[in-house]
Amino acid sequence: MGTLNDVPDKLNFLGTKMKNKISRRKFLRDASIVSSSFATFNLLSCNNNKKPNIIIIFCDDLGYGDLGTFGHPSIRTPNLDKLAAEGQKWTNFYAAASVCTPSRAGILTGRLPIRSGMCSDVRRVLFPDSAGGLPQTEITIAAALKQAGYKNACIGKWHLGHLNQYLPTNHGFDYYYGIPYSNDMDAIKGTTRKEQINPRTEYFNVPLMRNEEIIERPADQNSITKRYTEEAVKYIRQNKDQPFFIYLAHNLPHIPLFASSDFNNTSKRGLYGDVIEEIDFGVGEIIKTLKENGLDKNTLVIFTSDNGPWLAFNQHGGSAGLLRNGKGTTWEGGMREPTIFWNPSKIKPAVIAGMGSTLDLFSTVCNLAGAQVPADRIMDSFNLLPTLFDGKPSPRNLFFYYRGTEIYAVRKGDFKIHLITQNSYTKNNEKIVHNPPQLYNIQVDPSEKYNISEQHPEIIEGILKDLVEHKSKLIPGEDQLAKRIVKSDQ
Amino acid sequence: MGTLNDVPDKLNFLGTKMKNKISRRKFLRDASIVSSSFATFNLLSCNNNKKPNIIIIFCDDLGYGDLGTFGHPSIRTPNLDKLAAEGQKWTNFYAAASVCTPSRAGILTGRLPIRSGMCSDVRRVLFPDSAGGLPQTEITIAAALKQAGYKNACIGKWHLGHLNQYLPTNHGFDYYYGIPYSNDMDAIKGTTRKEQINPRTEYFNVPLMRNEEIIERPADQNSITKRYTEEAVKYIRQNKDQPFFIYLAHNLPHIPLFASSDFNNTSKRGLYGDVIEEIDFGVGEIIKTLKENGLDKNTLVIFTSDNGPWLAFNQHGGSAGLLRNGKGTTWEGGMREPTIFWNPSKIKPAVIAGMGSTLDLFSTVCNLAGAQVPADRIMDSFNLLPTLFDGKPSPRNLFFYYRGTEIYAVRKGDFKIHLITQNSYTKNNEKIVHNPPQLYNIQVDPSEKYNISEQHPEIIEGILKDLVEHKSKLIPGEDQLAKRIVKSDQ
Repeated sequence: MGTLNDVPDKLNFLGTKMKNKISRRKFLRDASIVSSSFATFNLLSCNNNKKPNIIIIFCDDLGYGDLGTFGHPSIRTPNLDKLAAEGQKWTNFYAAASVCTPSRAGILTGRLPIRSGMCSDVRRVLFPDSAGGLPQTEITIAAALKQAGYKNACIGKWHLGHLNQYLPTNHGFDYYYGIPYSNDMDAIKGTTRKEQINPRTEYFNVPLMRNEEIIERPADQNSITKRYTEEAVKYIRQNKDQPFFIYLAHNLPHIPLFASSDFNNTSKRGLYGDVIEEIDFGVGEIIKTLKENGLDKNTLVIFTSDNGPWLAFNQHGGSAGLLRNGKGTTWEGGMREPTIFWNPSKIKPAVIAGMGSTLDLFSTVCNLAGAQVPADRIMDSFNLLPTLFDGKPSPRNLFFYYRGTEIYAVRKGDFKIHLITQNSYTKNNEKIVHNPPQLYNIQVDPSEKYNISEQHPEIIEGILKDLVEHKSKLIPGEDQLAKRIVKSDQ
Repeated sequence: MGTLNDVPDKLNFLGTKMKNKISRRKFLRDASIVSSSFATFNLLSCNNNKKPNIIIIFCDDLGYGDLGTFGHPSIRTPNLDKLAAEGQKWTNFYAAASVCTPSRAGILTGRLPIRSGMCSDVRRVLFPDSAGGLPQTEITIAAALKQAGYKNACIGKWHLGHLNQYLPTNHGFDYYYGIPYSNDMDAIKGTTRKEQINPRTEYFNVPLMRNEEIIERPADQNSITKRYTEEAVKYIRQNKDQPFFIYLAHNLPHIPLFASSDFNNTSKRGLYGDVIEEIDFGVGEIIKTLKENGLDKNTLVIFTSDNGPWLAFNQHGGSAGLLRNGKGTTWEGGMREPTIFWNPSKIKPAVIAGMGSTLDLFSTVCNLAGAQVPADRIMDSFNLLPTLFDGKPSPRNLFFYYRGTEIYAVRKGDFKIHLITQNSYTKNNEKIVHNPPQLYNIQVDPSEKYNISEQHPEIIEGILKDLVEHKSKLIPGEDQLAKRIVKSDQ
């Protein structure tokens, strides 16, 4: 079949390409210089001195409260519950954004999406008619690990640009198998709500790709979670003798929901539960494969999600548990994710209530792998290894909640201010500016019910200083989400 | 010091006493006849053929979402999390009522509180001026176990009548240490909201009792959780060579909240978190004591709570997680409890989404202990041992949500109907009768957001038949909560 570049991309100028190439070359040169003086080189149990493998399992629209270990009463997730009990369960862990594209830019680059231009006030995510994508100047975890000798696979949803130059294989991944954007896009029959919640796979003309080729269109979504797991298992087996990185980005439980015949109609939570239980089963298969190949002790497995539950879809959306609101908002339910780190040889089992973010995975993984964290740009990524392996407090104390290119909220320690609040995916979505900002102690009040701004103006003042400092250094990247493909017949 | 009978109880007539005594004698005679033909006698690992010990840890106003393993992000409960992982975590487990007194009558008798007259439409619980209590005709778990050779301790809050004839020592317990009613009662300075949420122990003239004597008044509530744990540990050590039953009914986290100096100001969740973490620490001490004395394999530990969180007290109240509403209501948040069963030799580790209730503990414990379940009265108690030990589905498929003497809701399988809904502890507490009843699938929709009554009238009809059947056999007991002490000077 074809590629997604069959629609000409008139916005992709040669000049930009050249600049990107130069910047990337500069990074690699810098990296080689710095790596020789690399101080803390953390390996897992290395019988054969092999670098540790890394698997990031990244869900789509999974709610904070949707796993057993995070409190769901009817969704069964025995495999994830076990990983949480044996590893570290992080209860204050944030996605880089409250919607797909910027969140994915954040996890893969370790940089706030605004720096790469992967958030916008024009469109919140990339669409099939988008011409932009993750700039080639950006360095993904895969690109950094490739320099450290890793083989890298991206399995699942990409959503960082579907034109060739933006695809995983052009961002450090050796292998790609998945869909390039959300599973509700390219809708054949339109995306009426009814079709979204009583979906058939043929309603959505989403392509399934292998590397840069479309191999199936529409992708058979019924079996897609199963096939992602199978691809991951195969990649582990094929690469067991060398360090590998798998970024397994399930495109579910984003609507439309699909489960394979083994899971359809099996969960007490309905189709949404079927989907989560199939993902959990897949986690179990991956762990089993690691163990069968003697890789478990030398593999770090990280499980999290891209943003909160899509509440507007009622039972087809997830639950943020006791957290307020969901996807698309900067309330906790929109960006706090159920997160688990697992490695049976090095991780100190614990529940971590300190802050962490998907932004931190870049630095954490690179430090683990002995790969270089780029020194030529501002990073927003903390190395969490001292917490993971030694029980030290999390190094992250500050988090900025962006919506598009604006900062709506800031958390410092246990306190969070809301400068702006706004609902998403509902008619009642007025943008409300708060002056003074709202203030919550979100460890005492995780549901953000009790605004304590009047009692603690000094806390607000302190956080605002950090905000000014952050903004003073911020250089937004060129907006990638506003760019649209100019069709040749126009 | 004195006893609580120092105020004369004019309502306690000799005639009633005689009748009670006859009924109890009849039960004991029946019990001795039936016990010889006892068929399924379930013991734990019994090296010395000793019957298994039983410990029920019962919290007060703990929310469904307040433990780590039930999803709380900032309260640390490592001991309970471990018990849940090693044992069974029940996610659809109900208290017998949504407020203290009837809930406690239910757990201890295995009968709906309406049968014993321990719920009322006049007052929701017993107060210090109450003249009623759990009738002597009722048989508690302790009374049943006593006949099977157990030593029984009640440690903590009783709230089933503070006059002598109603106290634990007159209901099958060999030992009592605790407060006879709620910790916010007998308020010296009145019970203003401010004093309740910035409490000092001297504001509440609650007596602390040992057996039938008041040993401290006001009870020093700062150290009360710690002392309950110490009493339980002491009782385990003293009775390690014989079967024992400990009913450890913490009077916290019911407001006013208190924690001992070791826990005060230590939790991220504020004082409420301090309280839960001190209870969790106590659980750890109890398990440690069992292990030190070689009793862990032969002891069943059950952890649950009496009703949902008292939401009206904001941060001083708990959280029901994703469940709707809280204490005092028949929404799930009012009656579904975070419940754990633990025994390292017999319990099959699992998460159980089948239904269970505190009402079932009577039958479960008696079957385990080889004690007699009364055959001369209607019981509302299912034996959960087949689920606990053999992974069988829970035998409970039906649950009636009473508020006072009225049934507000009924659950059958995954479906729940609301005949009446009403808030509690708020000005907006209109009683709303639903015709047709509201209908929820509470496994698919545990937050009770989506009423599906129009789509499934046949399900409502089926449940209504069970309701009619239940009501047709119901004989309410004499209202014990309406009775007040007639002061001699009146």
